[in-house]
Amino acid sequence: MTPDAETGHPHAPAAATVRAVHDELDERAARLDAEHAQTDLRHRFLLPEGLVHLDGNSLGALPAAVPPVLRRVVQEEWGRDLIDSWNTAGWWDAPGRVGDAIGAVVGAGPGQVVAGDTTTLRLYQALRAAAVLRPEARVLVTDPGSFPTDLYVAHGVAAEVGWRVELADPDAMPVLLADLTARGERVAALAFSHVDYWTGRAWDLPGLVRAAHDAGALAVADLCHSAGAMPVGLDEHDVDLAVGCGYKYLNGGPGAPAYLYVARRHQPQFVNPVPGWHGHADPFAMAGEYAPADGVDRARTGTPPLLSLLALEAALTALDGVDADAVRERSLSLTAFLRECLESLVPGVDVVTPRDDERRGSQLSLRHEHAYGVVRALAERRVVGDFRAPDIVRLGVAAPYLTHADMVTAARAYAAVLADEEHLDPRHERRSTVT
Amino acid sequence: MTPDAETGHPHAPAAATVRAVHDELDERAARLDAEHAQTDLRHRFLLPEGLVHLDGNSLGALPAAVPPVLRRVVQEEWGRDLIDSWNTAGWWDAPGRVGDAIGAVVGAGPGQVVAGDTTTLRLYQALRAAAVLRPEARVLVTDPGSFPTDLYVAHGVAAEVGWRVELADPDAMPVLLADLTARGERVAALAFSHVDYWTGRAWDLPGLVRAAHDAGALAVADLCHSAGAMPVGLDEHDVDLAVGCGYKYLNGGPGAPAYLYVARRHQPQFVNPVPGWHGHADPFAMAGEYAPADGVDRARTGTPPLLSLLALEAALTALDGVDADAVRERSLSLTAFLRECLESLVPGVDVVTPRDDERRGSQLSLRHEHAYGVVRALAERRVVGDFRAPDIVRLGVAAPYLTHADMVTAARAYAAVLADEEHLDPRHERRSTVT
Repeated sequence: MTPDAETGHPHAPAAATVRAVHDELDERAARLDAEHAQTDLRHRFLLPEGLVHLDGNSLGALPAAVPPVLRRVVQEEWGRDLIDSWNTAGWWDAPGRVGDAIGAVVGAGPGQVVAGDTTTLRLYQALRAAAVLRPEARVLVTDPGSFPTDLYVAHGVAAEVGWRVELADPDAMPVLLADLTARGERVAALAFSHVDYWTGRAWDLPGLVRAAHDAGALAVADLCHSAGAMPVGLDEHDVDLAVGCGYKYLNGGPGAPAYLYVARRHQPQFVNPVPGWHGHADPFAMAGEYAPADGVDRARTGTPPLLSLLALEAALTALDGVDADAVRERSLSLTAFLRECLESLVPGVDVVTPRDDERRGSQLSLRHEHAYGVVRALAERRVVGDFRAPDIVRLGVAAPYLTHADMVTAARAYAAVLADEEHLDPRHERRSTVT
Repeated sequence: MTPDAETGHPHAPAAATVRAVHDELDERAARLDAEHAQTDLRHRFLLPEGLVHLDGNSLGALPAAVPPVLRRVVQEEWGRDLIDSWNTAGWWDAPGRVGDAIGAVVGAGPGQVVAGDTTTLRLYQALRAAAVLRPEARVLVTDPGSFPTDLYVAHGVAAEVGWRVELADPDAMPVLLADLTARGERVAALAFSHVDYWTGRAWDLPGLVRAAHDAGALAVADLCHSAGAMPVGLDEHDVDLAVGCGYKYLNGGPGAPAYLYVARRHQPQFVNPVPGWHGHADPFAMAGEYAPADGVDRARTGTPPLLSLLALEAALTALDGVDADAVRERSLSLTAFLRECLESLVPGVDVVTPRDDERRGSQLSLRHEHAYGVVRALAERRVVGDFRAPDIVRLGVAAPYLTHADMVTAARAYAAVLADEEHLDPRHERRSTVT
């Protein structure tokens, strides 16, 4: 490096060099965006002009299809047709219908996914079901780096059903499972996230399922950070149970309903610990005895939040006609290019997310001592990521509505924030625990 | 009765007499509506012209406040401000804030009600909490006439925690409790609905709470059919736990989130069987160990469905400035008058709902052999009630948007349907179980 002619900083590159780097990135971005023009679905989303939304892994952007559908649901279905809409507008069937639409995104054939409730409840149902399906097992294996809810529910269900919880990084799970099996221990389930929420690391889902099955255990996958961003292949890989939320890469809106996948082979034995009338075999008979519906409908609880559920249904149409492989290809190109931009423009940037495509989800997590301040300062520059304690700047890349040009913009903003020490501005001190 | 001059039917009253009865009812309706003009809130709702919506106990009418709020939530909070809205639009605090607004309707002071999830889940949480609060008890007393979900959850939780379920009509519960106590049996809880969904009968909530407490048991009330229609007085009457839905007399829209009341004295011991990160003491610390939040927030699960939840919040403003006593007074006047109209115009009408004000909720249930056909034929006459198997025509009276004139219209339609045998029309045969 040569001293910067303008600032005189001994390690700063010359202005001309900097300009050349920027120009080169802009040109590459334009070329890559032209190559990927077919998967650019930005026009299907209502994003504010000039905003680079790198937080679609927390809250997906608003699909253009949602507002007119919600207007119809509110004014016509609720306001005008009232209870008739249970039949005429398909409200009753919505959990299964939306479930099937999600199934199409995560590689599950019809009749195996039901939408509604929260991811927390869906996890609870999945693990309680695992206990019923593997009644003699006494161990649950899960990842200590799981999203907190997953750990809370895992420990909670374990305490209820008498499991010991064994924690292992997913890469270490196959060895642990083989070891437990060798010792004659029966493992009920291996519960893991397809993509780590914190590091953005993608785990080997097919390999984990095989390891689980080799040990006689079930594979329970949390798809929150993969569904809508990459192929999952639930049926193809023989996953047993899976859950996910509707508000990240599925773009269903704040708190959009979650979903549960129960592989068809397990449905007859699936027991719902939270049995409501919507999951009854003959709900309108109003029978006093519970008799579960056939199929995945038995996982329904009570009346689903239809405004949120039908918004999710409309949101899913934003992915119509583009398969998960195409989204994945675009996503990998975007995240690889974002890394390249950051590495070019931000000396010493610490990217936690794996470089290897196979091991990367659809985000880049950057470690920074003042991560909270960085996220706030980036937001002032209209680049929105999020902070994950204690030191992670999480940049989620929802491929359908982001471009390679956005990646340059984001990296440039990141560099500018650090260069100008905007992240140290006292206004960006962490005051609230809500970010 | 004298032969009808026009039809010649030997038992039909003379046309002049019929006209006089109708005129008299119209005049009474006009007088009563004038007397109750102050509680007529029809202008706060967007109901189709000419429709008499007697199904607000299934799905409340659309409050005029909802569409503009939802537009703002979708376009501005979600679409424009995205994750910032967790703070700036108060998304994070919504479950407690909406809970407090519901609390104001059901007589619960702030910090004791949390909104979100389904009634099914809230019941599950309430009964699991009862098991923790009464660890040595082995009996749950509940009403065999409860709404099916309540029975399914009661039996489900009983099987989990080792309770025997004793069934008794709420009127018989005090005697049963005394008897169980005399035999040295420990009762965990008395679970009952404030108003019976089928008959519209209101139970003696204060008396049931006293009986429960005398037996050392908890009182767990389901408010689905009373909240918003009559005073409940949760704090005043020392109820321990209560649940309800948001979509009936609270007018929150299809599948509007449910709520849970945990009396402040029980909150420190409340254990959430479905622990999600939103109920954590320090959610954004993303700790691997669950530590429940203080207060009723610990009953939160995962991310709530905000479109539905904020629609419910807007809907609750339709009840602003009118207290539960005033709504109740209007409701009793309407249901008493509806009975009178029916008894005047429909010979042999079989009203199942108690005549006594004290024992009546906010509906009239009419027994009819062809109840399904009656409901369908009434709907064609723009009078919407609902059918409850096997033989109930349920006419819910949501007082804020109904008038005494509507009661005459409904009774007249009921009489006309039967007189013209419209209910026997083959088009109205029951084909689907979804009504």
